[in-house]
Amino acid sequence: MERIDDLQLKGLKILQDTELFCFGTDAVLLADFVRLKKNARVADLGTGTGILPLLLYGRQEEISVQALELQERLCNIARRSVRMNGLEDRIEVLRGDIKEARSLLCGEFDAVVSNPPYEKEKAGIQSTDESHRLARFECTVTFEQLCRSAYKLLRSGGRFWLIHRAQRLAELLCCLRESRLEPKEIRLIHSFAGRPAAQVLLSAVKDGNEGLTVHPPLIVHHEDGSETEEIRKIYHRDGI
Amino acid sequence: MERIDDLQLKGLKILQDTELFCFGTDAVLLADFVRLKKNARVADLGTGTGILPLLLYGRQEEISVQALELQERLCNIARRSVRMNGLEDRIEVLRGDIKEARSLLCGEFDAVVSNPPYEKEKAGIQSTDESHRLARFECTVTFEQLCRSAYKLLRSGGRFWLIHRAQRLAELLCCLRESRLEPKEIRLIHSFAGRPAAQVLLSAVKDGNEGLTVHPPLIVHHEDGSETEEIRKIYHRDGI
Repeated sequence: MERIDDLQLKGLKILQDTELFCFGTDAVLLADFVRLKKNARVADLGTGTGILPLLLYGRQEEISVQALELQERLCNIARRSVRMNGLEDRIEVLRGDIKEARSLLCGEFDAVVSNPPYEKEKAGIQSTDESHRLARFECTVTFEQLCRSAYKLLRSGGRFWLIHRAQRLAELLCCLRESRLEPKEIRLIHSFAGRPAAQVLLSAVKDGNEGLTVHPPLIVHHEDGSETEEIRKIYHRDGI
Repeated sequence: MERIDDLQLKGLKILQDTELFCFGTDAVLLADFVRLKKNARVADLGTGTGILPLLLYGRQEEISVQALELQERLCNIARRSVRMNGLEDRIEVLRGDIKEARSLLCGEFDAVVSNPPYEKEKAGIQSTDESHRLARFECTVTFEQLCRSAYKLLRSGGRFWLIHRAQRLAELLCCLRESRLEPKEIRLIHSFAGRPAAQVLLSAVKDGNEGLTVHPPLIVHHEDGSETEEIRKIYHRDGI
């Protein structure tokens, strides 16, 4: 079933289909972590419903985004969301495979953003629903392939921004380095202050120098389950 | 000038020479992070004053440690500390180069611990004092060489425990993985909750499977500069 959600951010709205993969809080946390300069050229690899371009535009209007999505139905929804917001001149949604991003998108990018599948293809029980499976499991693109595409799209010194599972941190940092995307900043996300990190926000610079800043962690809930002040600020900003 | 410090931990004492490299809080934080089973065979690479073997013994008496130190004078002090505590049957201090650890130490180890030099040889201004220089800069052993030695000393499934600079986290995790020491746990140390991490505690398993636990961070000071409860507990336990 299709529905329109109000992002409560500069009047932006988004279309979602409850049968397909819907965006989660990860996209909101990533959008909050990303810093973009005026007139930045941005590529979003695996845009899904198109949530990241919309949230990024809500923070910095003077950007242009090319967003890639493999699933035809999600692509269609994302395109209609862009039109509904009158942002056709700012956000372009293209259908295609992340592995072929370099031949599908045009020019050099200042930033590449991605909220990629978190799980390796063979890990655990796989969701039977095709749309969810593609969004959650690395069945069509591995992290290594994602890094390779990000590297090819970025200008030298450009940044790759992403969110991923904290459990895979060692592998992620190594893959980024091997792809000559030097990790420069990470921020760990803990559901509760006393528990291990669940996710990690990362930024890596194409051909950058060594030296990583580990930011203070982002804590989601207080011990009593209520949201922390910082999370309320992030969500409230996007009205989600 | 030599002095005897009371570790206030099971009556243990340590000799230090104020002209040489003296142990810092890093050794105390690392000793607190390490978990050793009864009868564990432990190697300490770059033991300095011998602080780590003493603190580890203070926590788990049924261990045996072989501790390697390159500097003759520190070796001498460490040996005398061991004798002063009557621990000659538990802790053996050997003089030698970490790069040659495999031929200097005997048998397979359940755990390797290290509080290695934090800085690359060419980074920043180097301390002119030789003892401090060797302890702080990678002039005699790089992190890669340290990992190689740790791998050779450990039994399969054995653990490498260390503390290092958080800024080098990406490089550390990659080096460990390349040495087939799979990072399994990290804990970031922040001087203040709102500042980037200064150090990181790590443990890696020889030939281990992928999958990293990022523990809740260790915060050293409250905003007003006083020590946090957890730090007080760690220090108090060692009476330092």
